[in-house]
Amino acid sequence: MAKSASVFGPVQGIAPGHEFANRLELWSAGVHRQTQAGISARQGEGAESIVLSGGYEDDEDLGAVIIYTGRGGRSAESQQQVADQTLTGANRELACNVLSGLPVRVTRKVTEAGRSFYRYAGLYRIASYWAETGKSGHRVWRFRLEELTEWETPPEATGSATTAPDLFTAQEPGPAYGPAPRRLATTLRLVRDTAVTRQVKLLHDYHCQVCGVRLASPAGPYAEAAHIRPLGAPHHGPDTLANVLCLCPNHHVLFDLGSFGVADDGTLLGLAGQLRQHRQHLVAAEFLAYHRVHFYEPQAGELP
Amino acid sequence: MAKSASVFGPVQGIAPGHEFANRLELWSAGVHRQTQAGISARQGEGAESIVLSGGYEDDEDLGAVIIYTGRGGRSAESQQQVADQTLTGANRELACNVLSGLPVRVTRKVTEAGRSFYRYAGLYRIASYWAETGKSGHRVWRFRLEELTEWETPPEATGSATTAPDLFTAQEPGPAYGPAPRRLATTLRLVRDTAVTRQVKLLHDYHCQVCGVRLASPAGPYAEAAHIRPLGAPHHGPDTLANVLCLCPNHHVLFDLGSFGVADDGTLLGLAGQLRQHRQHLVAAEFLAYHRVHFYEPQAGELP
Repeated sequence: MAKSASVFGPVQGIAPGHEFANRLELWSAGVHRQTQAGISARQGEGAESIVLSGGYEDDEDLGAVIIYTGRGGRSAESQQQVADQTLTGANRELACNVLSGLPVRVTRKVTEAGRSFYRYAGLYRIASYWAETGKSGHRVWRFRLEELTEWETPPEATGSATTAPDLFTAQEPGPAYGPAPRRLATTLRLVRDTAVTRQVKLLHDYHCQVCGVRLASPAGPYAEAAHIRPLGAPHHGPDTLANVLCLCPNHHVLFDLGSFGVADDGTLLGLAGQLRQHRQHLVAAEFLAYHRVHFYEPQAGELP
Repeated sequence: MAKSASVFGPVQGIAPGHEFANRLELWSAGVHRQTQAGISARQGEGAESIVLSGGYEDDEDLGAVIIYTGRGGRSAESQQQVADQTLTGANRELACNVLSGLPVRVTRKVTEAGRSFYRYAGLYRIASYWAETGKSGHRVWRFRLEELTEWETPPEATGSATTAPDLFTAQEPGPAYGPAPRRLATTLRLVRDTAVTRQVKLLHDYHCQVCGVRLASPAGPYAEAAHIRPLGAPHHGPDTLANVLCLCPNHHVLFDLGSFGVADDGTLLGLAGQLRQHRQHLVAAEFLAYHRVHFYEPQAGELP
């Protein structure tokens, strides 16, 4: 029996609010293709759907935003977190959605007037992920889900579920792999500099503090300022020189995704070498530590 | 006399719609600090302001969007384009705004009922730039300006013009360098994959077609798909395999900014080497040519 294809995106005929009596119905309808597990995913492709059962102490369901906790490390009997989680298995698949931009179908278990049932909530994107110490004191992986309010289905697949193309025969995959993005990004992610981000680039003359490369373009040199402890919720890092690094786009991606970390003394972790330093740019150890704790995930034998 | 500091952003007391009798008044008010030139810029920092005089055959003023033509190559007598423009001088400064995200103040010369005057239009961002063959048959550089509808001034500088910090003494530059961005980008620009962008990454196994690097993260491998002829207006390139390259973020930036090009046979221009090819990934020469014509700007002696 051939492994069934991944199905990302909406299921034909099932709109947000649709109710199901139990997990079996949810499974039959194709909304969540696991009868017990809370996450349905295809290895290497990402998570298709999740079910929020309300049983996990670390989840925060805020409606349009869900802070979802990963799997693993729980006692089957007590349902309590008894060990650290790792970014493997289903957790890795959830993180994969961050990179691919593919949505997850979200369903909530609802209890009203003594009756339990399942209500499909619609599509969410997984915006970001990080590690935390959960209420139990163990490490848990957290995923920020944001409700998708716009979703275009390609004309050829209107109303149908979307399936992954057969990747080994078609050079030109069918458009029904996933709905076309509402806005196709065609240019760089160009972010307005703050005084701080501009300053760090000038101090390092646009050289990457990790690899030293300096990207030159006809429009001038190009580098990116990475906030070590991210700005905004939930990390609330400051926009200050002590909390930024001047990086090339490649090392910015790797840093944000936790491929490497930086020790308090500037030694690189997960990569060889030292951070390039500048006497007028003092990076605060507290932010490097925050990044190590919440993002850096050492990979056995895997150096980029 | 010290060189005056750059002034980006709004000028205190001057709102969009404010009228000036002539260029001298515009200059005195600090809105456009050149009495004759259409662009006011500081070398290496970007363009602060422009004046649209309506005299240039290639400009398109659509109100909220302006397709602005660069300077150079014009006959002083006939005001006609008589030679190719290059991405140097004021043109390079306009391109610099694309990288830094700093806004330009835009003023229009208006003729109504036989009277000419200048009307300040407000702040625009320079979203992108490219080269074209102008109406004259010569190469011109084009800049897409988009009206900025949101602009926050930092509390410390409410209502004041913003000035660049003294970069050689302060480690922590004053917040008044520029208004804080409404939305500070703290994470990657993660774009939803289309079938095509996903396919090209899978075919090349996330290896950059220019340098071969493969970025590994705990969430999986990461690469970017660059559309050779950009999607959307004004380039209208298709979202097809023939029009994409699998690149690392660094080479994606360099490609989009015109630091290098690709010859029809896959030879790299402006860089050493050849594009990595895959037998199931045929890149169309027409798109490579489009990119060379509209973006690639050979730099004398400057290899990234």
